[in-house]
Amino acid sequence: MCNKNFTSRIITLTTDFGEGSSYVAAMKGVLLSTFPEAKIIDITHSIFPQNIEQAASVLHDVSQLFPPGTIHVVVIDPGVGTERDILYAELGEQCYIFPNNGVLGSLSHEIAPKCVIKLENSQFWRHPVSHTFHGRDIMAPVAAQLAQGLDPHLLGKEASEIMKLSLDQPEILENRITGKIRLVDSFGNLITNIRHEHLSGRTTDSSVCIIIDIYETYGIYRTYGDLPEGALIAVVGSNGYLEMAVVGSNAAEQLGVEVGQKISLIWDGE
Amino acid sequence: MCNKNFTSRIITLTTDFGEGSSYVAAMKGVLLSTFPEAKIIDITHSIFPQNIEQAASVLHDVSQLFPPGTIHVVVIDPGVGTERDILYAELGEQCYIFPNNGVLGSLSHEIAPKCVIKLENSQFWRHPVSHTFHGRDIMAPVAAQLAQGLDPHLLGKEASEIMKLSLDQPEILENRITGKIRLVDSFGNLITNIRHEHLSGRTTDSSVCIIIDIYETYGIYRTYGDLPEGALIAVVGSNGYLEMAVVGSNAAEQLGVEVGQKISLIWDGE
Amino acid sequence: MCNKNFTSRIITLTTDFGEGSSYVAAMKGVLLSTFPEAKIIDITHSIFPQNIEQAASVLHDVSQLFPPGTIHVVVIDPGVGTERDILYAELGEQCYIFPNNGVLGSLSHEIAPKCVIKLENSQFWRHPVSHTFHGRDIMAPVAAQLAQGLDPHLLGKEASEIMKLSLDQPEILENRITGKIRLVDSFGNLITNIRHEHLSGRTTDSSVCIIIDIYETYGIYRTYGDLPEGALIAVVGSNGYLEMAVVGSNAAEQLGVEVGQKISLIWDGE
Repeated sequence: MCNKNFTSRIITLTTDFGEGSSYVAAMKGVLLSTFPEAKIIDITHSIFPQNIEQAASVLHDVSQLFPPGTIHVVVIDPGVGTERDILYAELGEQCYIFPNNGVLGSLSHEIAPKCVIKLENSQFWRHPVSHTFHGRDIMAPVAAQLAQGLDPHLLGKEASEIMKLSLDQPEILENRITGKIRLVDSFGNLITNIRHEHLSGRTTDSSVCIIIDIYETYGIYRTYGDLPEGALIAVVGSNGYLEMAVVGSNAAEQLGVEVGQKISLIWDGE
Repeated sequence: MCNKNFTSRIITLTTDFGEGSSYVAAMKGVLLSTFPEAKIIDITHSIFPQNIEQAASVLHDVSQLFPPGTIHVVVIDPGVGTERDILYAELGEQCYIFPNNGVLGSLSHEIAPKCVIKLENSQFWRHPVSHTFHGRDIMAPVAAQLAQGLDPHLLGKEASEIMKLSLDQPEILENRITGKIRLVDSFGNLITNIRHEHLSGRTTDSSVCIIIDIYETYGIYRTYGDLPEGALIAVVGSNGYLEMAVVGSNAAEQLGVEVGQKISLIWDGE
Repeated sequence: MCNKNFTSRIITLTTDFGEGSSYVAAMKGVLLSTFPEAKIIDITHSIFPQNIEQAASVLHDVSQLFPPGTIHVVVIDPGVGTERDILYAELGEQCYIFPNNGVLGSLSHEIAPKCVIKLENSQFWRHPVSHTFHGRDIMAPVAAQLAQGLDPHLLGKEASEIMKLSLDQPEILENRITGKIRLVDSFGNLITNIRHEHLSGRTTDSSVCIIIDIYETYGIYRTYGDLPEGALIAVVGSNGYLEMAVVGSNAAEQLGVEVGQKISLIWDGE
């Protein structure tokens, strides 16, 4: 059963088109032509081209903060025009339209998808449907019609499941956690895949040594300002992930560290 | 006669100010101060500085997708403060406010402008009018007042015509079409000036050889996924133009090709 | 006494998160979850990381153009999680929520802040409050509730004053003004800290020599088009500041000049 609450009128966009791309504007034109009262919010258009894992991570961190019934349109779609499906699904109180390529893999790990439906019925699409831009010709018109109250079941048949992403999980040992950098933010802060839950019951004072590349630091702090300018610092960030920063500076640049870099936490006695 | 349908309340912005420019924010402040219910949509602010041809191309591809009565404000304006006119015009069911410098040249090639009016009556402007930012002081307040129902004829006298752009058209021969790259998108795909109409009646199978710089490929495909990763592929893109891509990669970077590069399609027997 | 006029529903965002940052999307999610009717406008997310002076300058130039009662949320917050206060204040008819770090320093120089209140009462915040992202957990929910009509006095105690910025003022002598470049815009135009008021009563014809680095030019013009392509030109820009441009080109790149560069105006007879 679908719980779509259509009162929000909010449609978000997450793409790899680039900020300022005219492809984004094309989607907005179609959305508003179908439903002029739609409220369009850009989540981001800065996903690296075809980087499904990065998009999955952004949607995980951000999309559940929106009002119930928000429709999130996700166009990271390297398989556009081939056999991959476009799906509608509900996770929690949010609705998603996305190519079934793993882009909801992080979220669906934590929240069981409901009401998963394949977009098949072309009467709700824009015609002619191009083979290279289903964001404009299928996803945008369907999102706009859902926001106006269209029953998702009319879109097509229920699908059995959505594609998972095999996410790199940190390795958790008694005296050691080994993870990796999963994201670099605009400040150059290094967001790891180690969550605060992984740290529970462990000491976070100077008895923990954190090693990244050739650098090391001791202790996990509350916020960046807890150490002086220029210090390498570990904090648990706003989304619950351990992150490394250089106070008042750009850690990624200064350490020469990129996404994928290994990070280790080692406790006394090892 | 003007057909302005003012129910849309939608005002779009197309500028060369750069994403995140405070000039854009200044225009939005003036728009909303004049008409708080305006619905502002960014088409793009990433036009290369003063690149009229690029802006013309984006407006051609995108602006007609918006709801009837949308007001498109275009601020690519190298002649700001000089004698060039600012015009209001209707093309199809869309309304445009723009400096008369060719920026609507592509569109007006296909759709005859109606209700072309010169912005002359300064009572509808913001004062004092700066000499360097007519987007904020003339175009934004006029757009907001039009969206509220102002009759375009009050803005000034009808103008005879708008400036054309002499667009590079491809050369069409019996066994050969020669065009050029007119746009590189955020994926590095190379959008040409060759339209699908130019291809009608010709074979698009492997009997057509496509040559760009020192590279060649055979056949025009339906979508990117029709060839394996790394292959150079030609498809007709979502706006009806022939484009070249490298599957799963950035063609512009990989081929070292830029806007303006010549591209040739050659059919058997030449 | 506070004059907050809550009819605008407009909330603007000014951050150093970067265009397309998921931190911005997180704030929008929280804003809309609290108040779905909020109208969110991006002023900019392109402030250089932690550059308080640049943000102060943008807010000075832009924020007062918005409708009365607009709530401007400013998240340039190097001290997040430390003892710095977050304040609410009204300047003119605009409302601001900002860390008390000088970011309103330019504006408060010209407009006396009223109704300055410390954000202390955590019942209006999002919980749990992270130590590294008060934009999402404190500022966004408070802004959304103010836009819905919350009395600012409920947020906390009145504060005595907001932090000033010691802005570099130009040196004004009888035959010479010496200032500096305070901003480079997206065209590469060099915006100085010399205001048109500083020029009043002085000649602006070719008897004034303007020197920047090793370059010089004579006279202050009305607009860029007043000299031929490639000429170095001085004009008074749209915000009332003297600026230097190269006609049809990028002055910053061509002259190799950056923010902070000294500029001198010298009148005959010196």
